Amino acid sequence: MSTTHTIISQIFRDIVLSQNESRMIEDKMERIELKKGSSLLQAQDTVFHQYYVDHGCLRTYFIDSAGKEHTIQFAINDWWISDYTAFFNTGKAIMNIETIQDTTFYKISRSNMDALLLAIPQLETFFRKKMEGAFASFQKRILASLSQTAKERYLSFITTYPNIEQSVKNYHIASFLGITTESLSRIRKEIAQNSVS
Amino acid sequence: MSTTHTIISQIFRDIVLSQNESRMIEDKMERIELKKGSSLLQAQDTVFHQYYVDHGCLRTYFIDSAGKEHTIQFAINDWWISDYTAFFNTGKAIMNIETIQDTTFYKISRSNMDALLLAIPQLETFFRKKMEGAFASFQKRILASLSQTAKERYLSFITTYPNIEQSVKNYHIASFLGITTESLSRIRKEIAQNSVS
Repeated sequence: MSTTHTIISQIFRDIVLSQNESRMIEDKMERIELKKGSSLLQAQDTVFHQYYVDHGCLRTYFIDSAGKEHTIQFAINDWWISDYTAFFNTGKAIMNIETIQDTTFYKISRSNMDALLLAIPQLETFFRKKMEGAFASFQKRILASLSQTAKERYLSFITTYPNIEQSVKNYHIASFLGITTESLSRIRKEIAQNSVS
Repeated sequence: MSTTHTIISQIFRDIVLSQNESRMIEDKMERIELKKGSSLLQAQDTVFHQYYVDHGCLRTYFIDSAGKEHTIQFAINDWWISDYTAFFNTGKAIMNIETIQDTTFYKISRSNMDALLLAIPQLETFFRKKMEGAFASFQKRILASLSQTAKERYLSFITTYPNIEQSVKNYHIASFLGITTESLSRIRKEIAQNSVS
């Protein structure tokens, strides 16, 4: 069994696919390995693909009109990521995507996805549920930013993304939490002191 | 043709349904009329339904731990609304939903929706696309809050929700924009002065 074939059963483990259907999907997904610090997508690029992370870590970020960088999302293994607003309509990206670890991922284009959705109706259910999950986690993120302290958001971050803290830069985490790197250091110190005493 | 039957063709105008399929959907959707200021859902309620607004306006809001109210979304005619994070898993609401105008809407339960999705596969496509649109508008809202001035967000608000400004309270709009009612008045004055001069 090829690596790609195995990955198809992993990605789509929630649904039952025939061998033929698996092969169709396999044909449409491209495996890519990138070193840490590579750019996948830049603002103003037309967005043709979404990405499934096998292992490693991707980051989407947005640069505002004042040049300030905001981390929107990290994607670790078994997450899908893209600039979705643009991907849905094959429009222009407003976000950037880069690898922040050596990363292996699979990409699929909108047109290939549409062809697969027509050919394999179960994929509609699969991707609708993925969208529901993504939507829910986005909503959770908005509400957290409104209601939680920076310390609570930091603790939630290290639970959601275990093991990535050592490989991402402090300013990535700070810009994801909407705080300065100085505040991040202070929070870490607080937590370390509490766990010692 | 019944009112509900007509509304089914309106709601699902992007897909082609047989008469039989329309009737199946009609049986699962309940028409409700509520006076302005009625509560549809409160935080901690179990979320069984999503709502399609025929006319009027619904508002979802969140009350943070300090008791401060944040307007998450307004839904006007032809919008779907719910506390989606909870709706997807029939979990407990963290948001509240109320009518801010006299409103006619249709509600459908998760279990009825699941039954329809199985019986009418095209609905999978329909709801996946609705989710994509909702996701995109959520993402736009996050990026706007990071990058736009309060005045720009206000102008975008009156474009997105034409005609609702006269019927919603100032603190609804202010809490949607993430500003105080005083800032809202100042922005309105600025715009009025610019359009006179």
